[in-house]
Amino acid sequence: MLLAYDHGFERGPSDFDEHSIDPAWIMDIADSGYFTGVIFQKGIASKYYDKKKYKVPLIVKLNGKTAFHAGEEPISLQNCTVDEARELGAVAVGYTIYVGSENEQQMIQEFSKIEEEAHAKGLIVMGWMYPRGKHVKSDIDKETLAYAARLGQELNCDAIKIKYTGRPENFGWVVKAAGKTAVFVVGGEKVEDEEAVLKTTREIIECGAAGWAVGRNIWQAKEPKALAKKIAEILYK
Amino acid sequence: MLLAYDHGFERGPSDFDEHSIDPAWIMDIADSGYFTGVIFQKGIASKYYDKKKYKVPLIVKLNGKTAFHAGEEPISLQNCTVDEARELGAVAVGYTIYVGSENEQQMIQEFSKIEEEAHAKGLIVMGWMYPRGKHVKSDIDKETLAYAARLGQELNCDAIKIKYTGRPENFGWVVKAAGKTAVFVVGGEKVEDEEAVLKTTREIIECGAAGWAVGRNIWQAKEPKALAKKIAEILYK
Amino acid sequence: MLLAYDHGFERGPSDFDEHSIDPAWIMDIADSGYFTGVIFQKGIASKYYDKKKYKVPLIVKLNGKTAFHAGEEPISLQNCTVDEARELGAVAVGYTIYVGSENEQQMIQEFSKIEEEAHAKGLIVMGWMYPRGKHVKSDIDKETLAYAARLGQELNCDAIKIKYTGRPENFGWVVKAAGKTAVFVVGGEKVEDEEAVLKTTREIIECGAAGWAVGRNIWQAKEPKALAKKIAEILYK
Amino acid sequence: MLLAYDHGFERGPSDFDEHSIDPAWIMDIADSGYFTGVIFQKGIASKYYDKKKYKVPLIVKLNGKTAFHAGEEPISLQNCTVDEARELGAVAVGYTIYVGSENEQQMIQEFSKIEEEAHAKGLIVMGWMYPRGKHVKSDIDKETLAYAARLGQELNCDAIKIKYTGRPENFGWVVKAAGKTAVFVVGGEKVEDEEAVLKTTREIIECGAAGWAVGRNIWQAKEPKALAKKIAEILYK
Amino acid sequence: MLLAYDHGFERGPSDFDEHSIDPAWIMDIADSGYFTGVIFQKGIASKYYDKKKYKVPLIVKLNGKTAFHAGEEPISLQNCTVDEARELGAVAVGYTIYVGSENEQQMIQEFSKIEEEAHAKGLIVMGWMYPRGKHVKSDIDKETLAYAARLGQELNCDAIKIKYTGRPENFGWVVKAAGKTAVFVVGGEKVEDEEAVLKTTREIIECGAAGWAVGRNIWQAKEPKALAKKIAEILYK
Repeated sequence: MLLAYDHGFERGPSDFDEHSIDPAWIMDIADSGYFTGVIFQKGIASKYYDKKKYKVPLIVKLNGKTAFHAGEEPISLQNCTVDEARELGAVAVGYTIYVGSENEQQMIQEFSKIEEEAHAKGLIVMGWMYPRGKHVKSDIDKETLAYAARLGQELNCDAIKIKYTGRPENFGWVVKAAGKTAVFVVGGEKVEDEEAVLKTTREIIECGAAGWAVGRNIWQAKEPKALAKKIAEILYK
Repeated sequence: MLLAYDHGFERGPSDFDEHSIDPAWIMDIADSGYFTGVIFQKGIASKYYDKKKYKVPLIVKLNGKTAFHAGEEPISLQNCTVDEARELGAVAVGYTIYVGSENEQQMIQEFSKIEEEAHAKGLIVMGWMYPRGKHVKSDIDKETLAYAARLGQELNCDAIKIKYTGRPENFGWVVKAAGKTAVFVVGGEKVEDEEAVLKTTREIIECGAAGWAVGRNIWQAKEPKALAKKIAEILYK
Repeated sequence: MLLAYDHGFERGPSDFDEHSIDPAWIMDIADSGYFTGVIFQKGIASKYYDKKKYKVPLIVKLNGKTAFHAGEEPISLQNCTVDEARELGAVAVGYTIYVGSENEQQMIQEFSKIEEEAHAKGLIVMGWMYPRGKHVKSDIDKETLAYAARLGQELNCDAIKIKYTGRPENFGWVVKAAGKTAVFVVGGEKVEDEEAVLKTTREIIECGAAGWAVGRNIWQAKEPKALAKKIAEILYK
Repeated sequence: MLLAYDHGFERGPSDFDEHSIDPAWIMDIADSGYFTGVIFQKGIASKYYDKKKYKVPLIVKLNGKTAFHAGEEPISLQNCTVDEARELGAVAVGYTIYVGSENEQQMIQEFSKIEEEAHAKGLIVMGWMYPRGKHVKSDIDKETLAYAARLGQELNCDAIKIKYTGRPENFGWVVKAAGKTAVFVVGGEKVEDEEAVLKTTREIIECGAAGWAVGRNIWQAKEPKALAKKIAEILYK
Repeated sequence: MLLAYDHGFERGPSDFDEHSIDPAWIMDIADSGYFTGVIFQKGIASKYYDKKKYKVPLIVKLNGKTAFHAGEEPISLQNCTVDEARELGAVAVGYTIYVGSENEQQMIQEFSKIEEEAHAKGLIVMGWMYPRGKHVKSDIDKETLAYAARLGQELNCDAIKIKYTGRPENFGWVVKAAGKTAVFVVGGEKVEDEEAVLKTTREIIECGAAGWAVGRNIWQAKEPKALAKKIAEILYK
């Protein structure tokens, strides 16, 4: 289970409250023992991730865009080098590809250079595979997600982060399309009912996913660590 | 005869069934002795092509685009370096040029750098020469395909992959336009009638083509190896 | 308190009078002891900032655009390298990102390279975080400024320059969004009432800001040094 | 007299017949002793120009575009490096600039780098100076061609290839605009009347041109070598 | 007083007569002792400027565009490196920035790299500061020219070339905006009345300009050297 916290970049601080706006508060949750990685942009990593102190592995997200761009074909470009991520203590790097966007080629090309360099330097490479843009009818459709997952494998991702179709009867096809590439499911918006989160956790595991990359569902929860513990028990057993 | 398997990138997994979605299953066909090359994107090559184990030579495709881009002028950019392809065990690299596209110049320029580097490093260079875009009236027209074939030669391809005109009486002109550049014919969509495949095989060989670069017609066949064997007998005699 | 003087680039000499058009006159104010930095473009720094003579630290602004571009989506690109800034004696470099602009990605990417290089060479990195362009409804809205401030932190700025919301009751949220990144408030247009300037100074300090980055309010004042002294007394106590 | 044979790239094989489609047949004409250079794209040069065997000097064309792009502003980008051309045995490199095109600046900039490198490495630099695009009213107008010729000189071409105005009374001005840059006249479409070709040859020489860069008028002629001999006698006396 | 002769590039040979089309004829005027510099594009410099023979210093113009582009937003890109200019014997390099053009940022960025490199290699850097494009109402307006002049200083030009407002009562403000950057006034179109040229010469000198960068007014004059002598006497006394 990965704890994602790049929302300040992608969505702005309006998702945060007085606690969650503080990366130090997030790091405390991340390092609680229930997570196998924490995902930051370089600025947060630089100021709040002490590589000598924390045990939870660091994943640095290498691109990002703000939420202002409604109506534009999505594009997100590299803002951190592989070397800078390593320097910060990262064991893995992440990059979003908006699959189907008119700018898809630019992101695929940039990502492919990151993939080559990061693998050569011993880092794990993760792709956020998000179908998006005017050519994409639905971003939770089985075939669309299977395509995105497959692209992640074709581009040599070690792992991908992808939405859940919402249906356990077809998500296995998405996982199968990813082949040897591990599949992490995006947490998405806060779900009020904790039982629903645990149920979905069981579903995705049964479909072959490697686990969650979760953000708001943890740090917007009343008791983040308690919920993390419950999810972890399902995932790691 | 080359076995092409970049459909997961170019067309998505909807072409696949439970067998063909698995690159390991494809590798088993590719290494059956009937093929002189197997074509993968770098991710599949990295995870499924064991250069110590397999005898069939590896061709790594260096660019690709997804199928989402209907109505756009086609463009496909490099996503794998020549060095990364070599590292994976490739003896040849491939690259698609959408001849006639408004983005043609960008692809020609990128390809020309690949050609220089790959040849300098002893690799074979293949061009997927596909007339496409709003300026292209027909992509199986004799003159259009002859132009695409010629461009492959002018750009110093060792081999090209190109559509068949469908008519044995004029395909010789396409092959002639390619000069010393070897011509491989694209398999295209699955043909139900196996006899038709064998008949076409004879036609293209008589026109001077070097052989097939075939995908769906093999791995969507009921008995892929049996069909491969029949085609191979025609091609290699 | 930083003295900003890049108006000749960003707005043209129409803001200047016979005194303020002369960078030597500005340097005299800047080096009066009330400022912790002076902000120039490279040309002014090269001709008027004598690094052996002056005590006030130099901040070189690395990008800029002219005021002609009404109706265009804003973009401002690098016109000075980190090395050139160091050579001129800079201890810090600044760069404007027009947050929300359709060209935002280009500026984020360029800035991220500057950030990496400048930090590696021991310089302080400042971001002018200005929400601007057709997607931005208001550039003094609390949420918008908090987003811009947060982006500055996520991009690893040591300090940012940002507008004031105008309301002491909500500017603390903007400062909080910036986390460990120091917040300097843009002076903006000349305010006639000096008491108003001093009152605002107290407000931003109470909200947690590090201070002002002020230009016209100082060098268009009747007695620039006297006003600077009054502000400095509030800021540095 | 230069023999041009880049038509397979620029116009496609529809200009060719069973003989002229074969670069070996062209090389035989080129090396007949009547030509001072043969012009190929790199692919043809690589496969058919044996630098140990042939005496006629090789000119490698470094850019090219296909004929599909009617209605677009013309652009033609580099597809062969100076080093690759040298490796192939070239003594000169050529590059087309579509003067007046909206993409003119991109070609001028790319060409200027080629010019610097090629001259530094001892190669002759030729510019194909072709006024083209929506801003160009006529491409055989005296002033337009004089401008194109002049641009060739300003960009430091050793020689240019340019159209003939068709009128001996004004072509001298075009040659004069080129100054110390040698002027080769484009052969253009096949002229049926051989006497007309010889007459034009005399005209351009009297206007100060260095000679022809001819293609179709030679290799579409009934007896290419015989015609070449007649033209050569006029040019070289 | 600088003699400008890049008209063959910027305007074409239609400004020339049988004499002025010949750069050798121009060099004779330039080296007459009345000029402190001659301005060429690299091709003319390479063929006509003999650095061992001539005393007049060479200024190489590093960008240029043709006159075909009416209705386009102006852009002019680098076509000669700093090293190539030095090799040709230049003591200074020039570059046009179309201030206010939608392409302004591209030119500012390119120029800034030239400025850094040229200064590091000991060359003088001149900016042709020309307000141009749809955002520019008037290119001889006092405020507009003062802005352009100021930008030249902010970008660290040693000297700029700029239009005259036409009015001695306000041109001093333009010169003041340029600060320590020397101001050369563009000659512009041929003025028939020589007295008018001499009168304007006195005006610009009194406003603080460094002198003229003149072209047509000299080499289209009946007696270029005689006129140059008269202007020189005013400028250098």
